[in-house]
Amino acid sequence: MTAPPTIDDIHAAHERIGGVVHRTPVLTCSSLDRLTGCKLFVKAEHLQGVGAFKFRGATNAVLLLSDAEAKRGVCTHSSGNHAQALARAALERGIQAWIVMPTSAPGVKRRAVEGYGATVVQCEPTLQAREDTASQIVEETGATFIHPYDDSRIIAGAGTAAVELLQDVPDLDVIIAPIGGGGLMSGTCIAASAMQPGIRLLGAEPEGADDAARSLVACERILQRSPNTICDGLLTSLGALTWPILRDHLETIVTVSDSLVVEAMRLLWTRAKAVVEPSGATPLAAVLSQASPIQPGTRVGLIVSGGNIDLDNLPW
Amino acid sequence: MTAPPTIDDIHAAHERIGGVVHRTPVLTCSSLDRLTGCKLFVKAEHLQGVGAFKFRGATNAVLLLSDAEAKRGVCTHSSGNHAQALARAALERGIQAWIVMPTSAPGVKRRAVEGYGATVVQCEPTLQAREDTASQIVEETGATFIHPYDDSRIIAGAGTAAVELLQDVPDLDVIIAPIGGGGLMSGTCIAASAMQPGIRLLGAEPEGADDAARSLVACERILQRSPNTICDGLLTSLGALTWPILRDHLETIVTVSDSLVVEAMRLLWTRAKAVVEPSGATPLAAVLSQASPIQPGTRVGLIVSGGNIDLDNLPW
Repeated sequence: MTAPPTIDDIHAAHERIGGVVHRTPVLTCSSLDRLTGCKLFVKAEHLQGVGAFKFRGATNAVLLLSDAEAKRGVCTHSSGNHAQALARAALERGIQAWIVMPTSAPGVKRRAVEGYGATVVQCEPTLQAREDTASQIVEETGATFIHPYDDSRIIAGAGTAAVELLQDVPDLDVIIAPIGGGGLMSGTCIAASAMQPGIRLLGAEPEGADDAARSLVACERILQRSPNTICDGLLTSLGALTWPILRDHLETIVTVSDSLVVEAMRLLWTRAKAVVEPSGATPLAAVLSQASPIQPGTRVGLIVSGGNIDLDNLPW
Repeated sequence: MTAPPTIDDIHAAHERIGGVVHRTPVLTCSSLDRLTGCKLFVKAEHLQGVGAFKFRGATNAVLLLSDAEAKRGVCTHSSGNHAQALARAALERGIQAWIVMPTSAPGVKRRAVEGYGATVVQCEPTLQAREDTASQIVEETGATFIHPYDDSRIIAGAGTAAVELLQDVPDLDVIIAPIGGGGLMSGTCIAASAMQPGIRLLGAEPEGADDAARSLVACERILQRSPNTICDGLLTSLGALTWPILRDHLETIVTVSDSLVVEAMRLLWTRAKAVVEPSGATPLAAVLSQASPIQPGTRVGLIVSGGNIDLDNLPW
């Protein structure tokens, strides 16, 4: 899948996944509005199945398989929310899933994936080992490999969150989403720019994994080397498919410090009553940042995702 | 106000407060469903203004004041969510609010009330001192006293949460709500029994503040003496107005231990991604309880409210 999805692909994905994924609510919160001086609309993807927007793309990809393909199952490598998302999407269709996870992944994450009936295959914690192990499984089983973000079906599914946000709140000035591999942000860009031409599109990225921000400045894709941030969902590099979409649509990327992410996370928990993991708090951190290009009075859509946290290991 | 509200009063309240309060979403969560064997529908009142259903009743009471009454303001005594709810409801109408709070109330709660523009008047931490101080303010200012639960306007407002829940999920088998003073539960009883005759109505109460459960067994109102529970929103006694409504409608009250409340609270945080305070987790604790009269397969509406917690002082 080397072509990016069109807005028609995203609308088709929205239709396709409707019976499986939640239409998540858009939350508003007067105390966050007072604090930021903006009118914030939180697309609450932490309330999505498996606690993350990843379930949209995984469901879309699994539902697009032919019956013959589906019979042979799906495979990916991930230690994050995509692992759970693909496992559950496969469970919903009643097909097999092999999830390659590094031995370094927490036991709780492995058990969550196994809880959805997937087969976890452990490997050494290097990208090479992950890719090799997944390739071997695909070769042996005929399973379809589903990349976590650099896949048109995944991007189309991710874009359906912005479709719902703009259907529910049609007159937004700007949408901000987090950037890891760029799947959510690129789907958001395609959906929002088609549905509301001229809408401002901003990315939020941790300072310690700022490959997308550096890529945008350099106007070429720069890979992420040795990331260092608590935003463990945003460590990866942009993909060959996602990068040009971001380059062509983003006004800018606001990079945020881990301490600002923790502040934003606490605000989401205490004010919006939303259990959001660090990665998911980056869009609010971007609004709070001194480097934010958002003026007071702006109507801001925030795509907030990732509610998978360890209550016994909170960052405060 | 000595007569309980009718279903017409509750529908009128719903219409009246619609422009001010949130219509909160109803959340579903497949992992909680698997865990309980039931189909759970969480009416997410922790996402209500001020983080609690209390904002519904306070808004209804404030909007029912005549212009002449409104000019003289409102008054209550509370160290809990009703204090914030009345302060904010008064702010929304642009009128004055005097909130009597015991000197023992945490500074963060006092500042939250002051943040809504209300005047906090401190007093000794006894019920007598609270009532005396409030009476004095009412006498001096002509403000209208708004009781936290034993008031028909408050009960009618509280009942609007059940109205929305049943509009969104019309075929529930049972609704469970927490019981403190009984305002939420009695409003829920009146609304649900009128909208869906025969629906089962259950209360959830902490073991350490089980006056309502004991009242139901004795068939007479028993006051709460020296409560001992982490559910700090459920410490008060039933009111003269709320008690007969509960007596006439409730199938039973499930009492739950603090440890089960903490377990339910953790599940709501980690599975439903909902920041809910201990009091608000009691309905889920009731479903989890070995004493629960809920059979597997039941469609259960849970009114979950109260998201006001201190992240630096969590009960685990």
